[in-house]
Amino acid sequence: MAHALRLGRRRMGQCWPNPAVGCVIVRDGRIVGRGATAPGGRPHAEPQALAQAGAAARGATAYVTLEPCAHTGKTPPCAKALVTAGIARVVAPIADTDPRVSGQGFQYLRMHGVQVTTGVLADEAARDHAGFFLKVAQGRPLVTLKLANSFDGRIATATGESQWITGPEARRYVHGLRARHDAVMVGAGTARADDPSLTVREMGAMRQPVRVIVSRLIDVPLMSKLASGAREVPVWVAHGSDAAPLTRKAWESCGARLLQCSVRAGRIDPQALLTTLGGEGLTRVFCEGGGQLAASLLAADLVDELVGFTAGMALGAEGRPGIGAMGIDRLSEAPRFTLEEVRAMGGDVMHRWRRG
Amino acid sequence: MAHALRLGRRRMGQCWPNPAVGCVIVRDGRIVGRGATAPGGRPHAEPQALAQAGAAARGATAYVTLEPCAHTGKTPPCAKALVTAGIARVVAPIADTDPRVSGQGFQYLRMHGVQVTTGVLADEAARDHAGFFLKVAQGRPLVTLKLANSFDGRIATATGESQWITGPEARRYVHGLRARHDAVMVGAGTARADDPSLTVREMGAMRQPVRVIVSRLIDVPLMSKLASGAREVPVWVAHGSDAAPLTRKAWESCGARLLQCSVRAGRIDPQALLTTLGGEGLTRVFCEGGGQLAASLLAADLVDELVGFTAGMALGAEGRPGIGAMGIDRLSEAPRFTLEEVRAMGGDVMHRWRRG
Repeated sequence: MAHALRLGRRRMGQCWPNPAVGCVIVRDGRIVGRGATAPGGRPHAEPQALAQAGAAARGATAYVTLEPCAHTGKTPPCAKALVTAGIARVVAPIADTDPRVSGQGFQYLRMHGVQVTTGVLADEAARDHAGFFLKVAQGRPLVTLKLANSFDGRIATATGESQWITGPEARRYVHGLRARHDAVMVGAGTARADDPSLTVREMGAMRQPVRVIVSRLIDVPLMSKLASGAREVPVWVAHGSDAAPLTRKAWESCGARLLQCSVRAGRIDPQALLTTLGGEGLTRVFCEGGGQLAASLLAADLVDELVGFTAGMALGAEGRPGIGAMGIDRLSEAPRFTLEEVRAMGGDVMHRWRRG
Repeated sequence: MAHALRLGRRRMGQCWPNPAVGCVIVRDGRIVGRGATAPGGRPHAEPQALAQAGAAARGATAYVTLEPCAHTGKTPPCAKALVTAGIARVVAPIADTDPRVSGQGFQYLRMHGVQVTTGVLADEAARDHAGFFLKVAQGRPLVTLKLANSFDGRIATATGESQWITGPEARRYVHGLRARHDAVMVGAGTARADDPSLTVREMGAMRQPVRVIVSRLIDVPLMSKLASGAREVPVWVAHGSDAAPLTRKAWESCGARLLQCSVRAGRIDPQALLTTLGGEGLTRVFCEGGGQLAASLLAADLVDELVGFTAGMALGAEGRPGIGAMGIDRLSEAPRFTLEEVRAMGGDVMHRWRRG
């Protein structure tokens, strides 16, 4: 099962709107088939593993990281394929929470004489599929927030200089994080200040994450790398209803997709933003700032995971804060996170936190 | 030697103005004497270890963490005591940089037929004695800066609530850090806001570090714990020449010691402050904030070690910054630190950095 989870995990960020599932087929103690959800979400993991196993699938055990589907979507149901291939036993950590599947995949298998075991490495599987489950349950993707700052929490000097606060190892790790998310998201301030491309580099060929710009008035220059590269890698612009029609048109003609979101207190409402992104199929979004977008997501308790990089330098209080104003008066109001991992990374500290 | 270094290290913060030295005497592979500089700086490590060894010192090897002294100060010279006791060999990592000793201790030993070996664990010894060496070379103590903040670099909410951002494990570790320094130092803002006692608690009986308040006008209430406890544990007030005479008198009558320092740009000049503290004999100072004092020390490049604690919460840009304004425009102007250690501590991250 650990091997199947690893197979699935490698496809994180590649399969949306589908979950990244891994499947390993074992016969007489030997692996006879391996599969993982293909980039784009189809084909699923199970038919690929079955195809590899061929006749060896008869009487074998299939380890699948999520309940096999039982409904006919764009592909025939995997539960049926497993039965047809003669699989004797299916081991799956958890049920799919998608109402079209939820328990019906297991039921179909059992009805057709396949032994079903659940619960194995269920916590790991729940984490791997957390983005997909959040989209099913709440209609929004999982949000990972990145914070790369000086040890006094600054992401740039007062004059805006920000390259580079963290070292090459941390920046490379960030590319890996981008690759494991369906989309990379920034606010307009960061898009203007850093003119980032937000693509995954040095990680081999793969499906690039969607680039999402959050800007009520779309005040990002059309000369930016994001606008000019929108035909190569998708760019979505989440804007308010008061964005100028000419600006919208200009971005559309660059190849960007425009998503109108509701505005609250002068800013794109973070809940509405994520619901829109979930509606478009995203399951995992990686937010790279800036401070205002980070603050609005944190204040709305919409950050699920946080990855911090702390560099060994001080920039002082005039420097730009990594997290903007949140309106917190009491410590008890502050969103809290639990430490998952901490380690040295190059000359910086990398720390990962989980909400709650 | 590692054992001798450990013995000396335990006395850090206890021996100023003297260095915290450890001594182990070994005869025929067995330890026959142990010693470390006594609290207050006298007696030195060597005579204590020799006394323990007695006649067994004859022909033995003495491991000492610093060159034995050769001058007659308040105690007779240790080099002479080692010779008199019949020590055959002295192993010491490094020479004492104190001009009264510098090389003369080793010379005295060699002149009297004692074999001298140096360089063993020299880096570790240099670190342990860094405060003493700084005082000798530059007339100022080593400065360790503590930063305990949310992951966005805030030490309190906008309303000033700061207790507690970090957990009990981190706070306990801070008491250990206080104990290993000669003095604990805070600015007036922190003294007012937190009304701290700055004593070492839950660490067993020991010499308490001096408590230093840095406040140009001494604007800290006389009802504070620091003022009311100044007779039990020393309180030094570093102030400017424009502090009101009545205020000075009032603090003196509480038992505090007043140290007038020069003022630059409206604040106590950090270089002058440290020179004054070095002149009073301090070798290691632990600065616990607040943001303004931290910023002025960092901006003057006077922070030698930094211990950060990062808690899993966000407070937002209205929160109080752990480091105040530093006047930095370019990243190249920022003081930089090298990571020494990072680990999880309770629910927080502890990270230690060294200047440069």
